[in-house]
Amino acid sequence: MLYFLNDYSEGAHPRVMEALEKTNLAVTCGYGEDEYCAKAREAMRKTFACPEADVHFLVGGTQTNLIAMTAFLRPWEAVIAVDSAHVCVHETGAIEAVGHKVYAVPGEDGKLTPEAVRKAVKDHQTGVEEHMVLPKLVYVSDSTELGTIYTRAELEALSDTCRELGLLLYLDGARLGAALTAEGNDLQPEDFAKLCDAFYVGGTKNAQLFGEAMIIVNDDLKPFFRNVMKQRGGMLAKGRLLGVQFEAMFRDDLWLQTARHANELAQKLAKGLKDLGVEFYIDSPTNQLFPILPDRVVEKLKAGFAFDFTAKIDETHTAIRFVTSWATPEENVDFLLIALERLMK
Amino acid sequence: MLYFLNDYSEGAHPRVMEALEKTNLAVTCGYGEDEYCAKAREAMRKTFACPEADVHFLVGGTQTNLIAMTAFLRPWEAVIAVDSAHVCVHETGAIEAVGHKVYAVPGEDGKLTPEAVRKAVKDHQTGVEEHMVLPKLVYVSDSTELGTIYTRAELEALSDTCRELGLLLYLDGARLGAALTAEGNDLQPEDFAKLCDAFYVGGTKNAQLFGEAMIIVNDDLKPFFRNVMKQRGGMLAKGRLLGVQFEAMFRDDLWLQTARHANELAQKLAKGLKDLGVEFYIDSPTNQLFPILPDRVVEKLKAGFAFDFTAKIDETHTAIRFVTSWATPEENVDFLLIALERLMK
Amino acid sequence: MLYFLNDYSEGAHPRVMEALEKTNLAVTCGYGEDEYCAKAREAMRKTFACPEADVHFLVGGTQTNLIAMTAFLRPWEAVIAVDSAHVCVHETGAIEAVGHKVYAVPGEDGKLTPEAVRKAVKDHQTGVEEHMVLPKLVYVSDSTELGTIYTRAELEALSDTCRELGLLLYLDGARLGAALTAEGNDLQPEDFAKLCDAFYVGGTKNAQLFGEAMIIVNDDLKPFFRNVMKQRGGMLAKGRLLGVQFEAMFRDDLWLQTARHANELAQKLAKGLKDLGVEFYIDSPTNQLFPILPDRVVEKLKAGFAFDFTAKIDETHTAIRFVTSWATPEENVDFLLIALERLMK
Amino acid sequence: MLYFLNDYSEGAHPRVMEALEKTNLAVTCGYGEDEYCAKAREAMRKTFACPEADVHFLVGGTQTNLIAMTAFLRPWEAVIAVDSAHVCVHETGAIEAVGHKVYAVPGEDGKLTPEAVRKAVKDHQTGVEEHMVLPKLVYVSDSTELGTIYTRAELEALSDTCRELGLLLYLDGARLGAALTAEGNDLQPEDFAKLCDAFYVGGTKNAQLFGEAMIIVNDDLKPFFRNVMKQRGGMLAKGRLLGVQFEAMFRDDLWLQTARHANELAQKLAKGLKDLGVEFYIDSPTNQLFPILPDRVVEKLKAGFAFDFTAKIDETHTAIRFVTSWATPEENVDFLLIALERLMK
Repeated sequence: MLYFLNDYSEGAHPRVMEALEKTNLAVTCGYGEDEYCAKAREAMRKTFACPEADVHFLVGGTQTNLIAMTAFLRPWEAVIAVDSAHVCVHETGAIEAVGHKVYAVPGEDGKLTPEAVRKAVKDHQTGVEEHMVLPKLVYVSDSTELGTIYTRAELEALSDTCRELGLLLYLDGARLGAALTAEGNDLQPEDFAKLCDAFYVGGTKNAQLFGEAMIIVNDDLKPFFRNVMKQRGGMLAKGRLLGVQFEAMFRDDLWLQTARHANELAQKLAKGLKDLGVEFYIDSPTNQLFPILPDRVVEKLKAGFAFDFTAKIDETHTAIRFVTSWATPEENVDFLLIALERLMK
Repeated sequence: MLYFLNDYSEGAHPRVMEALEKTNLAVTCGYGEDEYCAKAREAMRKTFACPEADVHFLVGGTQTNLIAMTAFLRPWEAVIAVDSAHVCVHETGAIEAVGHKVYAVPGEDGKLTPEAVRKAVKDHQTGVEEHMVLPKLVYVSDSTELGTIYTRAELEALSDTCRELGLLLYLDGARLGAALTAEGNDLQPEDFAKLCDAFYVGGTKNAQLFGEAMIIVNDDLKPFFRNVMKQRGGMLAKGRLLGVQFEAMFRDDLWLQTARHANELAQKLAKGLKDLGVEFYIDSPTNQLFPILPDRVVEKLKAGFAFDFTAKIDETHTAIRFVTSWATPEENVDFLLIALERLMK
Repeated sequence: MLYFLNDYSEGAHPRVMEALEKTNLAVTCGYGEDEYCAKAREAMRKTFACPEADVHFLVGGTQTNLIAMTAFLRPWEAVIAVDSAHVCVHETGAIEAVGHKVYAVPGEDGKLTPEAVRKAVKDHQTGVEEHMVLPKLVYVSDSTELGTIYTRAELEALSDTCRELGLLLYLDGARLGAALTAEGNDLQPEDFAKLCDAFYVGGTKNAQLFGEAMIIVNDDLKPFFRNVMKQRGGMLAKGRLLGVQFEAMFRDDLWLQTARHANELAQKLAKGLKDLGVEFYIDSPTNQLFPILPDRVVEKLKAGFAFDFTAKIDETHTAIRFVTSWATPEENVDFLLIALERLMK
Repeated sequence: MLYFLNDYSEGAHPRVMEALEKTNLAVTCGYGEDEYCAKAREAMRKTFACPEADVHFLVGGTQTNLIAMTAFLRPWEAVIAVDSAHVCVHETGAIEAVGHKVYAVPGEDGKLTPEAVRKAVKDHQTGVEEHMVLPKLVYVSDSTELGTIYTRAELEALSDTCRELGLLLYLDGARLGAALTAEGNDLQPEDFAKLCDAFYVGGTKNAQLFGEAMIIVNDDLKPFFRNVMKQRGGMLAKGRLLGVQFEAMFRDDLWLQTARHANELAQKLAKGLKDLGVEFYIDSPTNQLFPILPDRVVEKLKAGFAFDFTAKIDETHTAIRFVTSWATPEENVDFLLIALERLMK
C-alpha cells in the first residue's frame, strides 16, 4: 500500500530524531521553560521578524485553535471562517465546545475574502446587536483546507479590513511551510507577524513528531496564555520536546526544505495527472491535490494506494485527495502515475 | 406612536392579571412545586394529549432553548436548524455558549425540510466521523421566524426523517398559538406530542407577563431537567406565577383566542397592504408581516409607528416587519393603513 | 399550614401589584429599555449614591450570579466564597457550569474575613502559578446564608483587602433589605457602591414577584453585560415588569419597610424562643432564625408549620430554620410560639 | 545542578527512543488507529486483565482528566476528590472549566476514605437535591499527590462504597508504576480493572516522552470517548507515537522496572535522611519524599540541587519535595546525602 493519505503518516525528519536522541538524557525543568524552548523561541522570533512576540509551543492543531479562542475571546465574541475551514468541519465542534460561535461564510477557492468578512459583520448589525454574537476574530489558514494559498495582496486586504473593523486576524499555519514554498507564493515569513494578531506554525504536518508554535504579536492577547494552555490540557510536561524539534526544524530552514519536497512531488503528480487529461476539483500549488476521477478508477486504485475522498462530482466521478509529505519517495509518485495511466485507459 | 414592533410590547391579558391578583397572598412552596403549577401541568397534558409528559415552566425563550440543549445533548452532539432560526440569529450564541454547534441550513420560507436534514446528516458522514460533530437534535419553530407555519404533512415528514435517522425533534413554540390559529393550519395540539420529542409553548409572546412551558414527551429526555433549570438560572423562585398564568391561559382556550386576535388583525393589515399594491418579502398567515416598502415611505412612517427592519431589498426598497399582538386595537391597524395609503401616493 | 419556610412564599406587595396592574396595557419596547426601567434605574442610582453606575434588571439570584461571573471573569479566574455561600451550596454548581472554580473557605458566622481571603490568595501562590486558578473575585452576601450581617468595619476591611490584592468585591444582596434594616447594622446604602465593584439588590425575597437589580460600579466591568444577559437567558422580553416593580419598591423606601417587617417579626419570634429556653445554631438579627429544637418537638411541629432543616446537632436535637417575610402576619408568629410552648413542655 | 525536581525532567528510556527510531519511517494511518496502538492496547488489556476494556492513548494528565470528566459526566454531576488532589490544585481549574464542580474533602495521608465519600454524598442530600450538584464520580490517584499508596483493602472499600452509592470510581494513575512497585503495595494490575470504572496509566512520569493510557472498563462510559478526545484537542495526529511507546514500556514489564528504580533511589534517600535525623511531612514509600528541613539548610541546598517546596512548617522549617525518576543516577542521591550531612551539622 502506497500512502497519499496525509502529511502526517510518517514519523519525524532524521535531523529531528537525532536532536531528540542527543538531548534525551539532558535534565531540564518542565512545561516549556527550558533552554531548548528558549532557543527555538529565538529562532522563530528571528525568522518571523517579531522580536517582541510571545511564542508558545503546543502539541496539535485543534488544541492550539481551541486554546487560542479561549484565551483571545470573551464569551459573546464569535469567529468568522470559511465554511470549508478546519475549525468548521474537522474539529468536532471544538470552538463551540469552548463557547464560541463560528460564523461560516462562503469562500473563494477555500479562501476568505474582505467582502465576506464585511458581510459577516454587517449580518450582525441588523437589529439589536446584543441579541447577536459579536464577530471578533477572523480565522484563516495558509495553505487552506483545499491546498490553495493567499497572495500577499489578499492577506494584506484581509488584515486591513480586520483593523478597520476592529477584528483580530488569526492564521492557522498548520501547513504554513507548504504555503511559503508553493509556486506563486509572494508572502514572506515576516509578513505574517505584520499582518496577523496571532498565528501558528505547524510542525505535525511538516516533518516533526508533533508540535505547533503559536506566535502572538498583539500585546493585548499575550497575558495569561500559559494559564489557558495548562487549563485546557495543552501544556506538555516534557515541554523541551517541542523546543528541541522546532530548533532542529528552524536550523538552516529545514522546515522550508521539507515542505518544498512535499510540494514538488505533489506538483509532479499534478502535471502527470493533467497529462492524463484529469481535471481537478480545485487547482492547488501545494502538497494537497484534488483530482476528479471516474469512480471505476477510484475503486481499483484503492487496492494499492491510500487516499481520501472529498466530494462526489456526478453520477460517475469523484474528487479524491492525494497528499504528499516531507517523506514521500519520488518513486511513489511514479508508481501512482503508472497505475493511473493503466486504469484510465 | 403606534406599536407594530413586536408581540410582547404590552403586559398580560386581564384574565391573567386577575388570576395573579387573586392568588397574590396565597402561600405556597417555591420552584414550581405548588398546586397552581400542578393544575397548569394537568391542563397542558390534557390539551396536548400527553398524559405521561413532563411539563416544566420557564421564564423566557432563550433560557428555555439553552436549558433544553444542555439537558438533552452530550458535548459532541449538534443542532440542525434553518439559518433564519431564532437560535441561529437572535440569542447571542446561547447554544454555542453551552457548548453545542448549531449547523445552519437553508430553509424554505423559513421552514426546515427533510431534505435539508438528510443533507446535514450526510455532510457529517464524509470522513472520519469522530472529527465532526454528531447532528442529534433538529430545531424547528412554529410559527417560524418569518411568520410561516408547518402543515401537518410537513411536520410529519420531519418527524419521520428524525426517527429514521436517530435524531431528536424539538419544536420552539414561542408563537405556537399563532401557528395553531392561522389560516391554513391543519395541525392540532395533540400532533405536537406525537411528532416531537419535546416542544415548548410560549406565553411571553401570547398574552402572559412571561412564561414558556416545556413539554417533554420522550422518556429519555426527562431525568434531571430540573437540575439543569436550576443550574442555568431558569428556575423561578415564585414558580407559582408561571402556574397561575398558564392555568388562566389554558382555561377555555384563552391562549388560542388571544393568538387568533393577533392573527386576524395582521391578516386584515395584510389584505389592506395588498390592496395598496404592496408586495411581501414572504407570505405569512400569522401575526408577523414582512411588506416591502419604498424607503421614502418607511422613513416617513417611522414618525408615528414603531416597527422593525428585516432586509434591504434593492436600492430604494426595504422589507420591514409589522407585528400584532393579543392587545393590538383594531383602530391601530386602520390608522396604519390610512397612513400608508397617503404615503404611498 | 402556617409558613415559615422562606421569604418568597407569597406574591408581591399590594403596591407592586397595583403598579403592574396600572401599567399593564401601556405599550413599550422590550428588554429593559423602556421608561419604567429608566426611572427605576434612576431611583437606584440615587438610593445607592452612584450616579455613574450601570443598573441591570434580572429575574432571579442564581441567574444574576452566573451572568455576573461570566461577564466579570476570564476563564482562568476563580471566585473566593465562604463554604456556606449560596453559590457553593444552593445553585447546582452554576458558577462551575460557566467554567469558574469557587474556592470555598471557612467563614465566621457565615461571613468572609480578610484573613480567609488572604489565605485563599496565598494558597494559590505556592508553586507554578499558571498551574492554579487565579483568585479574582470575592463573593459575599449581606445578609448571609445564615442570616448574619456585615458591619461597616467588616465590609470596609474586606474591600481594602480586595483592592490591595487586586481582587473584585461582589456582593449578593438577595436579602440586602433585611441586612439594612437589621438591628446592629451600620451600613448605609451608599456604602455598597463605595466598597464593592458590583452588587445586586434582591426583589424576589423582598416583596416583589421577582427581580434582582445588578449595580455595576467598576467601569471595567460594565461593557457587554447585556450581551451576556441575553446569551445566558437572563434578559426578560417584557423587561418593563422589572422596572415597574423596582420603581414601586424604591418609592418611599418601600423595600426597607417590607424588609423591616420581616425582621421585626423574626426578632419577636427569636425573643419568644429564647424565653422558652431555646438555644440557637447561630444568632441572626434578620428574618432567618436557626433555633435548635428537640427532635420530638420538630416532628410534631411539622403537622401545622412549614419550615426547613439546617443541621442535625446531636442524637436528639436538630437545628431548623424559620423564615419570615414582608407578608407574614403577626398572628402566625404568635401561633407558632404558643404551639412551641405546649410542645416544649 | 542536580535535579530532584520531578520525574519528568529527562527524556525517555533508551528502549522507548529506540522503538521510536526504528519505526520512524513506517507509514501508518493517523489518530491512534495504527497497528502499534493496536498492539499496545492488547498488551495493556492483558496486563490489567480486562480483555473487553477500551484503551485510549492521550498525551498528558490534565488533558486525560478533563476529557474523562467531559465524557463521563452530565452537566449537573460533580467529582469528589481529596483537597490535595491534582485536579483540585494543579490543573488551573480544568475540571471546572469543562463545567463540573470538584467537591474537595479532607484526606488521610493524601488518600480518600469511604467515610469522606459518604459524607460528601450526604452533604448533598440535605435539602432540595436539584439545587445542589449531584456527586457522581470519585477521583483518586495512586500513588497520591503526597507519594502515598492505597492498599488493596482501601481501594476495595472505596470501590464497594462507590457501587453502593451509585458513584463511578476513577483512578488517576499518572504514577501507577510507582505505586505498584512500592514497598507495602499489595494491589496487582488486574485489581484496577476490577475495582475501577476507568483508570489511566501514566507514561509521562514514568520513562516515556509523554503518554497516558486511559482504560475504560465500565461499558456505559465507552461510547463516543474518541469524539471528546478530538473535540478537546487530545487526539494526537501521529497517534502511533503513543502506541510505540506504550508497547515498548509494557514489553517485559519495563514500566515496572523504571518505576522500581525511581522508588529504590528515593527510599535509599529516605533512609539516609532518617539517619540524619530528618523528620518527614508525610511518610511515602514511592519516588516522592517530603522531608522537613531547617530553612537555612534549604536555602543553601538550592545552590546545587533543584527541588520543590511543599509547605512552611514553622518559623524555621520547611517541607520540601525530592523526586527521583527512572533516570536518576545513584550518585546523585549520594551527593545529596553528603551535601545534607554537611549542611545539617
